[in-house]
Amino acid sequence: MSASATHAPSEGKATVAIASDHAGPELKAVIAAQLREAGFPVLDLGTDGAASVDYPTFADAVAAALADGRAGLGVLICGTGIGISIAANRHRHVRAALCHSPTDARLTRLHNDANVLVLGARTTGIEVAKDCVATFFSTEFEGGRHARRVAMLG
Amino acid sequence: MSASATHAPSEGKATVAIASDHAGPELKAVIAAQLREAGFPVLDLGTDGAASVDYPTFADAVAAALADGRAGLGVLICGTGIGISIAANRHRHVRAALCHSPTDARLTRLHNDANVLVLGARTTGIEVAKDCVATFFSTEFEGGRHARRVAMLG
Repeated sequence: MSASATHAPSEGKATVAIASDHAGPELKAVIAAQLREAGFPVLDLGTDGAASVDYPTFADAVAAALADGRAGLGVLICGTGIGISIAANRHRHVRAALCHSPTDARLTRLHNDANVLVLGARTTGIEVAKDCVATFFSTEFEGGRHARRVAMLG
Repeated sequence: MSASATHAPSEGKATVAIASDHAGPELKAVIAAQLREAGFPVLDLGTDGAASVDYPTFADAVAAALADGRAGLGVLICGTGIGISIAANRHRHVRAALCHSPTDARLTRLHNDANVLVLGARTTGIEVAKDCVATFFSTEFEGGRHARRVAMLG
């Protein structure tokens, strides 16, 4: 996946549900555009303004989209990524991975089969965030001994 | 809290349950010593060797210690901190915060009333980890508008 490549949306790529609290609309817009450019259909679940909102509501919205099949993967954003990742991981079908680097993104796809990438809009810079997205959405789960551990999270 | 200060264990300080998978015994030992020096009773729930273990088991052990009152706060460690934080946050009484910096540690205590600090033994350096511990265990929850959001996580 390249930020400069242009792709038509592919039926083979999972729809990505994306949401943030009021800390993240700008980062959300950048990542949504990056994902669309890479051929992922994007389901944007807000928020879109600066008005203060409750991060658990937006975690629940992405979890619901994954549960009912409107999306296959997700991205969540809040100030640090911590609150919204706690909320998302209340849902047993969600494996929400707070990533600060492409290394985190690589390892959590390889080892945890994470299905939601979480970013801190106020703690991770835009170029690092974009590299996390590129890595997360192009790395496959490794399986093997990790599959037993992932099953324990379900 | 200073890493160089010496304190007798204080009855006023919560017991801290600490556990890691096989990526973290060395970091766990350093942090347990740091916490004891700062006056926190420490409940060490393993693992202590290099043998491969399943991180969800150790997240569940700390969650159980918090649920039954053996501990009031916790520390969890795995390679990236991601897998063990997903597992810990399956428990609704746990607010496990994966921290990469003292800034994360400060904000998650202020805003999320996090009760478990999570660290990545293979992604965060020892001095940064110790600063995360110092900040996490000396910062109080801010309450206010954040209390409503924390209640939504319960």
